[in-house]
Order: sequence, then C-alpha cells, then structure tokens
Amino acid sequence: VQLSQAGEFGLIKRMRRIIESGSDEIVLGIGDDAAVVRPKSGSCLVLTTDALVEGVHFDLRYTPFDALGWKALAVNLSDVAAVGGVPSYALVSLALPEAWTVENVESLYRGLKRCGKMYDCKIVGGDTTRSIGKGFISISVIGYVKQNAIANRSGAQPGDLLCVTGTLGGARVGFEVLRENQNVDLFKKSIRRFLKPLPKIAEAGRLIRELKISSMIDISDGLSSDVSHLCEQSGLGCILREDAIPLHPDVKVWAEQVGIPPARFALTSGEEYELVFTVNPDRLERWINHNRKEKHFPVTSIGEMVHKNKGIRVKCGEKTIPLSEKGWNHFRK
Amino acid sequence: VQLSQAGEFGLIKRMRRIIESGSDEIVLGIGDDAAVVRPKSGSCLVLTTDALVEGVHFDLRYTPFDALGWKALAVNLSDVAAVGGVPSYALVSLALPEAWTVENVESLYRGLKRCGKMYDCKIVGGDTTRSIGKGFISISVIGYVKQNAIANRSGAQPGDLLCVTGTLGGARVGFEVLRENQNVDLFKKSIRRFLKPLPKIAEAGRLIRELKISSMIDISDGLSSDVSHLCEQSGLGCILREDAIPLHPDVKVWAEQVGIPPARFALTSGEEYELVFTVNPDRLERWINHNRKEKHFPVTSIGEMVHKNKGIRVKCGEKTIPLSEKGWNHFRK
Repeated sequence: VQLSQAGEFGLIKRMRRIIESGSDEIVLGIGDDAAVVRPKSGSCLVLTTDALVEGVHFDLRYTPFDALGWKALAVNLSDVAAVGGVPSYALVSLALPEAWTVENVESLYRGLKRCGKMYDCKIVGGDTTRSIGKGFISISVIGYVKQNAIANRSGAQPGDLLCVTGTLGGARVGFEVLRENQNVDLFKKSIRRFLKPLPKIAEAGRLIRELKISSMIDISDGLSSDVSHLCEQSGLGCILREDAIPLHPDVKVWAEQVGIPPARFALTSGEEYELVFTVNPDRLERWINHNRKEKHFPVTSIGEMVHKNKGIRVKCGEKTIPLSEKGWNHFRK
Repeated sequence: VQLSQAGEFGLIKRMRRIIESGSDEIVLGIGDDAAVVRPKSGSCLVLTTDALVEGVHFDLRYTPFDALGWKALAVNLSDVAAVGGVPSYALVSLALPEAWTVENVESLYRGLKRCGKMYDCKIVGGDTTRSIGKGFISISVIGYVKQNAIANRSGAQPGDLLCVTGTLGGARVGFEVLRENQNVDLFKKSIRRFLKPLPKIAEAGRLIRELKISSMIDISDGLSSDVSHLCEQSGLGCILREDAIPLHPDVKVWAEQVGIPPARFALTSGEEYELVFTVNPDRLERWINHNRKEKHFPVTSIGEMVHKNKGIRVKCGEKTIPLSEKGWNHFRK
C-alpha cells in the first residue's frame, strides 16, 4: 500500500495499532498533541536524542525495516545506559520518502516495538511527515536515573584502569560483510550485532552500583574516538594497549581477509554499543574475584588513565603512538 | 565556513557556545551521552516531538535560518500548550545538507535559543549528523503539567461552545506572500506570523484554570482539519459558523486578491498555532463579563458542539455543509 493511499491519519492509525499498550502511568497517549505521563518520584530525568539518516547511517539495500526500527531505538537506549539510566518513554519522529510503503513503515514500527518491549521503553508519541528524498528517523528517549548513580565522561582519575564490556569489531565486520555482500552466511553473528545492537542498560547499572566506576561512555563512533572524548572531558591522557582489546570471534577471519591487523580493525569499529569506563584498579580486582563463581558479563581492562601531558596514546607492540581519532566524524573527510 | 572544515565536534562546540546556560536543575548537559535534569516534583511530564523537513515544511529561498530555528522549537511548544503544559527542556536533532554553512547552523541555533529564552525552555541536548539531500530538524520538548489541569482532545460535551484564540488566516497570507514573492512589504505582520509563530502557553494555562475548558487542540493543520480531529476524538459533531471566524487584518486584502472568500481562506490556514477549545456557554459568558475591564487575550466563539449523528458541519450563509478536512495531510494528494 502506498503512503499516499493511506494518508497521514490512516498511517498513524496503523502505527497506533502496533505500538499501543495501555499503562497506568500514561495519562495521555498517542492521538493528542502531546503525551502526558506520571513520573517516577525521587529520580532525575535522563533525556537523549539520536537520529538515523538514510545514506549516512543506513542503506536499505541491506537493512530490513524491522532492524532499522530496532536500531533507531537501540542507539538511544545505549546513550541512556552510558549515563547509568533506565529508559522509560520514546518519541519517534519520521520523515518518509514516497517510495516507502505502508508495510515498510509497519515493519519499522514492529522493530521499534520489539526493542522497546525488551528494554521496557514505551513509545508514547511521535511525528510522521513526508520527506523529499531520503528517509530520516529521529528518536528521543526519556528515562530515569538516581542522582547518586549518574555516570559521566568527566570523572576519570589518573591511575584508573580503562575498561570495556564485551568484545569489539563485530559490528564493523557485520557492516562490511553486508556492504560487500560477501560470505553473508559465514558472519551471521556479526551481521546481527550490526543490525540489532543490544544496549547495555543492566550492565551499566551494575558497573555503577557494584564497581563505583569513575566515568563512562558508550561506543558509537569507535573505541579510539570515544576514548578520546572521555579523556578530553576528564582532562586526562591514557595509554591504551592495542593487544588487550577483546575481539569479536569474527574479527580475526574478516580483518585478515581485508588486510587490516585485527586489533586496529576493532579500534575504529563504530556502532558497537559496548561501554567504555574507568575504574579504580583495586575495586576492579575485588569485583572480578567476587564475581568469579557467579555468571557475570565480560569486562576487559585495556589500558590506564594518565596525566594529560602524557597524551592520549596507544601501545602497539613496542611502540606507543598517539591515538588519533579514527572513529566516525560527520562532515569531516 | 563549510561544515566539512569545522567537523562534527567543532560544530558542536560552536553550538554549545550559543545555547549553553548554567542552571541548577541541569545535572548533566551537552557533552555527555545524555542530559540529566532534576525534575519538578508534583507534576506530570509532557512529552512531544515535531519535525520540520526541507521542501515539505520550509523553503530556504524565503526562510531565514534564525526563523527556522525559532519555528522548529515553537511548533513543539504549541503542542505543549495544547495539553495545558509549560515547556522546560528541548532536545534538537539536526541532519544538515553539505551546502549549509557553519554560520547558517549558528544562525539557526540563535533562533532556537531566542525562542527557548522567551518560553523558558532550555536546550539540553541534541544530535547533529550529515544529510544526503534535504535538511531535517526534529525537536522534542519535555515539559510539566499538573494532573488536574491537563487539556485533551476528547473531553468536549454536546452544547459546549467551540472557540478559538486570536485571529486566523495570517499565517497563510504570510506563506503565500513569501512563496509568490509579492507585496512582501505590505504584509509584514502576516509574514512574521508565518515565520515566527508565538505558541500560546500562557493563554492555554488561563483557559484551563479560569474557564475549565472541556477540550483543546492547537491549529497546525488548519481550523477545518483540527476541528475535525477534536470532534472525532470527543465522539461528537459540531456546527461551525464560517462568518464567526475571527480574521487576521491582512486576510481580507490578500484573499480577495487571490479570489477566495476570506473566511474560507482562514478555515484552511495551517500553522496558525492558535488554540481551538470547547467550553460550557455559561462559563464563557461569566469569564468574558469578568474580564471586561482587564486586558485579556481575544477569544471568539465560532460554533457549537452537537451529537455525533449531526455530523461535522460548517454554516456558510444559509447553507450548512460537511466540513471536509481541508487542512494539511501528509502523503495524501
């Protein structure tokens, strides 16, 4: 069905059918000029927004619409995770090219809904318009965080360890495999990682409560770029050990195939949505010992925070070189 | 300066310089992954989002960037007004074509900042990316409303009067004058109305507190379309008197020039950002009598709410015809 056949209000009705879920806290939902919700008391509000632009962040040749919806919300949830919050509400702003069908938009909304359900984030409103040209999805998420449990980019201390959750490089493998349309079956896990990232909401909460981490950022632009942001905001330098970067299992195969050293490949892999954080070394040791018998998520120390005058550097074998920002930077070529 | 010269992070620094304003309630502001604010206690949260898309909502041939920034925020504030809220925070999501300069974006941000300042709405975060093609500005606003003072679209009662604030038609005059590039000097007031609308935050609050209005909507699509939405959501019909519609002073001149009856011209004029509401007739009379000696904003009764089976109709002279949706509808042609 063409968008022009359904019309704006027909389309909105279909979208409501997908996402609507009654909830006591929602006083006024979709269908009014604005949503009204009863807030959680005793918490601060977390506010964030992130957009996916066609041709910049996604390519419909290899991005199913449901994955697009999932990802558009997930990248916002990852920002909520980075400050230690839990998500609660989402607002969805869409500009739709005429070539997209009603079914495409419904599929996008199903992806949104599934991601929201997994992370307990309700879609309470939005705006849907035409676009001349490319598609555009901007989402804002409103969440909560306790005032004494907020993580930021600026609290790292000299001597803190620089750590990362999970493994890196998989998202970039997924992206490149899809883009080149090569061995798609061999790299299914990486593709899933790229298309449907899992923001680390629960992990972030545990890092703050149990480890009293001193700063945190999520990896959206790439480890090298995001570590640089964290260092700048904390007014510190760091020494990152390239050989310590935890690699996604697919990285070794793919990076060698394209002729890039695996760790360097992972260093500039964006859209990972893992967390980078800094922590006192003793606290990390105690936490790892304490958690040895329980199931816990992987955390790897990849370097150390140092004074600003030592620079932001990466140790590659015997050499220690400046960690130039190699991640994603809009506009710059 | 080209965007590619400044780079994403250089641009963000310039934008921060324009909008940053220290505030006790902002715990974490621009520069972190998400903003964190201390909420007002005892109020519900108002959440809304609205986008302006180049080629759909604005045309740079006659829209200065500062007006664009103003309007992008104002249209959101009008949604907050429509539910009776007061705005507090804004998140700004931008997709910038390569042709826009750093100075263009700074000018846009100055417009945003000025509108925010006028309505006490702080810009606490955003996202800035490239766009392949057209420009896109999506803003989300977070505000507050007391639970016992929320207006919605669904509370109208049969017998209520249908009323509107201010005058209508000016925004459409402004738009058409700019588009045709005719007599721009003669219609300055209408042009200003179109480019820099003034959301009715304070007026909405007074209508709710003093008049105990039964429903409300803001005029973004056009009176005919927005009245239809209000009727549908309230499960009612209405009789709207075309000759009662309060007209902007410029409408008579321009509408006659283009050969459209002035009231009909005003009926389908979108982007007015006035408020349409329903109210008990006795209450309205008492309020008008009471306010006779004080300064108050103009309110005009333009019709009456009736049972659903009487339809949504407009009285034009002797005839009463269905009020077909003549306002703005994306996608439909």
